[in-house]
Amino acid sequence: MSSIAAAQHKKATARPLTPATHGKDEHEVFRRLRAATKAAGYDALVALSQDNVTYTAGFLVPSHATNRFRRTISILAGDSFASQIVVSVEEKQAVARSRFADVRSYDQFADDPADVLADALIEAGVAEGRIAVELDYMPARDFLRLRERLPRAVFEECKEIYFRTRMIKTDEEVGILRRIGLLTERVIHDSLKEVRVGMTEIDVARRVVDQLIAGGSTNFKYRFGSGVNSSVTNCGTTHKKIEAGDIIRIEVLGELDNYRSNVTRTAVVGRPTDRQRDIFASLVRAREICKTMIRPGLPVADLYRTYVTSCRESGIEPTLKFLGHGIGQTIHEEPYITDTRDIVFEPNITFTMEPLYMIPGEMGFHAEDMYVITRDGFDFITGDICKNDELIQVG
Amino acid sequence: MSSIAAAQHKKATARPLTPATHGKDEHEVFRRLRAATKAAGYDALVALSQDNVTYTAGFLVPSHATNRFRRTISILAGDSFASQIVVSVEEKQAVARSRFADVRSYDQFADDPADVLADALIEAGVAEGRIAVELDYMPARDFLRLRERLPRAVFEECKEIYFRTRMIKTDEEVGILRRIGLLTERVIHDSLKEVRVGMTEIDVARRVVDQLIAGGSTNFKYRFGSGVNSSVTNCGTTHKKIEAGDIIRIEVLGELDNYRSNVTRTAVVGRPTDRQRDIFASLVRAREICKTMIRPGLPVADLYRTYVTSCRESGIEPTLKFLGHGIGQTIHEEPYITDTRDIVFEPNITFTMEPLYMIPGEMGFHAEDMYVITRDGFDFITGDICKNDELIQVG
Repeated sequence: MSSIAAAQHKKATARPLTPATHGKDEHEVFRRLRAATKAAGYDALVALSQDNVTYTAGFLVPSHATNRFRRTISILAGDSFASQIVVSVEEKQAVARSRFADVRSYDQFADDPADVLADALIEAGVAEGRIAVELDYMPARDFLRLRERLPRAVFEECKEIYFRTRMIKTDEEVGILRRIGLLTERVIHDSLKEVRVGMTEIDVARRVVDQLIAGGSTNFKYRFGSGVNSSVTNCGTTHKKIEAGDIIRIEVLGELDNYRSNVTRTAVVGRPTDRQRDIFASLVRAREICKTMIRPGLPVADLYRTYVTSCRESGIEPTLKFLGHGIGQTIHEEPYITDTRDIVFEPNITFTMEPLYMIPGEMGFHAEDMYVITRDGFDFITGDICKNDELIQVG
Repeated sequence: MSSIAAAQHKKATARPLTPATHGKDEHEVFRRLRAATKAAGYDALVALSQDNVTYTAGFLVPSHATNRFRRTISILAGDSFASQIVVSVEEKQAVARSRFADVRSYDQFADDPADVLADALIEAGVAEGRIAVELDYMPARDFLRLRERLPRAVFEECKEIYFRTRMIKTDEEVGILRRIGLLTERVIHDSLKEVRVGMTEIDVARRVVDQLIAGGSTNFKYRFGSGVNSSVTNCGTTHKKIEAGDIIRIEVLGELDNYRSNVTRTAVVGRPTDRQRDIFASLVRAREICKTMIRPGLPVADLYRTYVTSCRESGIEPTLKFLGHGIGQTIHEEPYITDTRDIVFEPNITFTMEPLYMIPGEMGFHAEDMYVITRDGFDFITGDICKNDELIQVG
């Protein structure tokens, strides 16, 4: 490994230094991340996960999503150093589409990307600095190699820097989330209208997916469960036929320009029983009480506690230990709406609320929409097209 | 963290020891992994990646694919210890569907899965043992925590154990790969037949995806590039309209029961030019020469060198530094068909060959099929339905 390291080091030092780009000319995301890194007392910020690197670069290196051996790394250091490391086979795309002007590539079979990273940090002048890295994602071997190459650097977790920065969306991000949220809700609405007794779950899924693709979404996921399958969290979609009386739970995780949606509806084939109606009404009641509270300054933990209290007053115990979650580059991100978080709502936080109640082996109830915090309250991203104040009747 | 650790430890030691299951009663995959672990001199084998854990458990924990903060871990230790660690929200599914009889869950917001792992290894009696873990995947923080909890254990990379074991498929695995390979090839065949000038790339993608879903595939990916888009490795699928004379490159990565397919075809809208015909013929010629060599005992590096030599004799330089790759739980796995590998073909190795030549900014040529090594040669998994001895003419 040391011979590769030496070669890499030579290559890196032989390059001219990256020309300084002044903060004001940089993309808003770079500026925010640099500011957060500095405020937290670090000299550099290194990301390796698909969501953090894609957020930073504004571009998903395709094999970042399909091949875990092809590392993709982003580096911001000091006031001007910015570099992205990609596998050589994706270099052309990255040069054309990434926000990083400085793209460095490695040969998947001959080079160690951890060495390319070490070289870049040395070049950036932070070899003895405080470096915030994704310890929660970076493979142990990369970390051990990096520490070996930069023995005087201090490495600490950068999770909070990314969480807090990503949590407050830019207006551009909110715009993309609105587009994919609306598409997702419309697809669910239109697909539920076509549900008939005797169709299989997969028959419905074909309609969902066709409309998602037609709308420009590609990296989506969906979960469609009928009858007892509706009671399985993250269920698969099967050849089971839809029967009269089935509860149907449809959850769609859409995607557009690397931003995600998460919308869920519960329907019943025919008329609901009193028990089904009552359970769903309890979830809706809890959600509506929560809605009256949402505004900047509200601690998310308070929202969660209100939700739990309301459910219990109706005699149901929430199945999940959170009411919802932030949404953006990943389906789940901060703020998790739960009582272990000390986060307070701020404008441009985007999140879901997903009251959920499962009766294992029987049926499940789940209503999920997307919201955005505004200057003085909140706004719906979804919830207007496919209403869910009561169980949707289909068939 | 130490109070959580203490609580976890109490929980773990309070449980009865997992009853010993004798090797002969275990699933073939468990037996193979235990044997490979022992042969490599280790007392335990720990996996965290989606592919290795799913391979071991025979079941994909759904959020393992969507939420990187929800760790899923598999542990095999000694002759009988076997345990899987999952997030509590997925526990019921794992208990019902995983090969592991012993499923342990953690609260995503309160527990540290690295502590649950440490407790399990202590319970398995290997706290001072040699433990093979996925250093190439395990997040650095989990590794640091594990080393802190088990200071007398030796941790080393388990990559080779999994690579070598997964590389030789069971007959059951070959069967699944044949099913998804055939579905994928048929979908490409039928979709190409429908291509017409004026359709968009997304129009074609809708046909591809609809047939994949109807065939039971869910976690697929596809890349459809026409004209200049065909020259982009891992291109996206766009609203571009298909024009006469376009080269079309369609690559489908299907999925069935967590096994993947990878099939690619290159077509031309109308008649090919002489240059297009010649380039594709050069790739086919190289592939056909390679086919005459494939049998158990052949070093994959020899196959790669033959491919490169043949391409160069035709005046083209291969774009990729490998001719193909193993395929199974992941699209790319060992053996990579390249000259940095010392792997020799053995029966039940499944792999692709994908001669590929890109002319950046102009067009790309790519023909990919799946194969399996047999006792005295090889067999096609794909290649019979959608022939590609020459450019496919569409439109």
